[in-house]
Amino acid sequence: MKEPRRIAIGSGSSGSVAWIGTGLLAEAGRYLESPSGRFLLVSSRGARVPAERIRDVLAGRVLTSLEIDDREEAKTLETVSKIADAAIAAGVRRDDAFVAVGGGVVSDVAGFAAAILLRGIPWNAVPTTTGAMADAAIGGKTGVDHPAGKNLLGAFHPPRAILVDPGAAATLPDRDFRAGLVEAFKGAWIADASLAREAEEAIDRLLRREEGPLLSLLAGAIAVKAAVVTADLREEGNRRVLNFGHTLGHAFEAAGGYRALRHGEAVAWGIAAALDLSQRRARLPERDASRVRHVLNSLGPFPEPVRDPAALEGYLSRDKKGNARGTAGVLLEAIGRARVIEAIPIAEWLEAAARVRLQEP
Amino acid sequence: MKEPRRIAIGSGSSGSVAWIGTGLLAEAGRYLESPSGRFLLVSSRGARVPAERIRDVLAGRVLTSLEIDDREEAKTLETVSKIADAAIAAGVRRDDAFVAVGGGVVSDVAGFAAAILLRGIPWNAVPTTTGAMADAAIGGKTGVDHPAGKNLLGAFHPPRAILVDPGAAATLPDRDFRAGLVEAFKGAWIADASLAREAEEAIDRLLRREEGPLLSLLAGAIAVKAAVVTADLREEGNRRVLNFGHTLGHAFEAAGGYRALRHGEAVAWGIAAALDLSQRRARLPERDASRVRHVLNSLGPFPEPVRDPAALEGYLSRDKKGNARGTAGVLLEAIGRARVIEAIPIAEWLEAAARVRLQEP
Repeated sequence: MKEPRRIAIGSGSSGSVAWIGTGLLAEAGRYLESPSGRFLLVSSRGARVPAERIRDVLAGRVLTSLEIDDREEAKTLETVSKIADAAIAAGVRRDDAFVAVGGGVVSDVAGFAAAILLRGIPWNAVPTTTGAMADAAIGGKTGVDHPAGKNLLGAFHPPRAILVDPGAAATLPDRDFRAGLVEAFKGAWIADASLAREAEEAIDRLLRREEGPLLSLLAGAIAVKAAVVTADLREEGNRRVLNFGHTLGHAFEAAGGYRALRHGEAVAWGIAAALDLSQRRARLPERDASRVRHVLNSLGPFPEPVRDPAALEGYLSRDKKGNARGTAGVLLEAIGRARVIEAIPIAEWLEAAARVRLQEP
Repeated sequence: MKEPRRIAIGSGSSGSVAWIGTGLLAEAGRYLESPSGRFLLVSSRGARVPAERIRDVLAGRVLTSLEIDDREEAKTLETVSKIADAAIAAGVRRDDAFVAVGGGVVSDVAGFAAAILLRGIPWNAVPTTTGAMADAAIGGKTGVDHPAGKNLLGAFHPPRAILVDPGAAATLPDRDFRAGLVEAFKGAWIADASLAREAEEAIDRLLRREEGPLLSLLAGAIAVKAAVVTADLREEGNRRVLNFGHTLGHAFEAAGGYRALRHGEAVAWGIAAALDLSQRRARLPERDASRVRHVLNSLGPFPEPVRDPAALEGYLSRDKKGNARGTAGVLLEAIGRARVIEAIPIAEWLEAAARVRLQEP
């Protein structure tokens, strides 16, 4: 195997290291971290193959393995409680570490369980979807949903190591593969114009899952997120640029009951709506907006979102970045350059949502 | 009102300020902190009077009030979930703050809810028991119990402000008042010989709830905890001295199903057992051991603990400070000087538990 690429995120006790390379799973024993040398595996049904692989590689060092439901509906405090039960029953100690093998739901839930078990034990992430590889495990956000909205309960608790092996996504259904790439492109669009250009030009090869362009895009997106997150670990400032497309994205996702749209698909619609706001409020040139739309159309077509303001309003006004005057939004000034605008009135978001279109007939 | 005493704990975004003084409740509006100016009150039935007082003082700034069950049995993830539900239903935002009014269970649970709601919102503690005044809200530990042991799920999330007004404990039953003083004395015993001497000499006045000695002991215990915690926020080293009496204390408490003994009573037994270990392993002089025993006897008599090794062993081996070789213990070298001994074998703990006696006939 070629030496994997190494990207450091944060520093000290809240630091993570992301390792990116093809064939990494087979070397997981070298990269996963546990102070005691013992691991607890949490995975999903869809990630059985890579999870088995990791279990084999770690051989006798796995204290227990647990398969959890990774649908958004199961991203609850109850699932966290189940993970804690299994870990405690297995005799977990503070120096043992979790390994979350799966998509974003698995790393969010298992990472949150690690955050609160014994007031925090180490964990590692092995993302098996393109979305999770580009986004979910990086930056330390963990959490579960509440009927009123996504990720309303959670903690900042970065994994020690993140192993990104595109091979782990080999059996990912095409719809999930494409939806996940939205998150990867998002990283390029907010902060890396040349990565955006390069990935745009490689869009057909990406959709064919060619290893070279896939590794480049994922590593580039991780590098963007790592740089932003390292500068702003606790989300008090610029970290919010990562939320590009997510303000309405979360509302679209919630309004569809977390079933109608994949997370990445909801974010694609959120990005499309944010382009509109960006052109009016941040002077995003039309040619940049249309390049982004073109990529989204290539990754789609995506199921239509709920556009009804009455259905979206509640979710928007409960946004964690909101205050009494509105909800902060991330707009593009150009491809590769994002800006946070404070307190955009809810009415303006709803208008953009009502108007949003992709795939013009 | 006399100016209250101010003790800073930690620093920066993980810092708390404790205010200590008689009559502080009436001035709560000056000391409780909320970035938005809005508060969410969480209290217990037993703390209704001080909670009403706070609500009156904060007048129109209280978003919602919630009364929770504060028995140890209710210190669960479900109660946290209920608090989160109420807060979200009331439209909580990241810049609002909780106020926990009650004993240790209320601050542990409400503080933990604050830790995970929207990945962390600010909170304040208004302890209404002597135990919580001396201990619970200081240092940022929050959490809930698991059937397998106390505080197995939780987070470090220090309150912004802690208001200690002995008047808030005016209606506290005598048994709880006395049990809480065990935690206050513990602070003196591990780190402040002159505070220990002074409080020992004032024991009768303390038991009569005289304001002067009570304020001195509480402020002294808070100052000890603040100093230890500030030096070691994340419990990686010396902070563990605060656990004096708690290793067996937690086991006694759990073995009694959290009903037979108050927390402070279980800690009293844990301290008594630790005296024995301290004499053998840390050369604690007999005259110091007997002074500590004398105070514990004055605060008691306490109900007898479960001493059966078979009942205690499981709890000890699951202790958060444990590893494969045993469980770390805090021993006294002298009154006012504690030391952490790593990996004391479980068998030795069980022996000390089996032998422990107070109130010799």
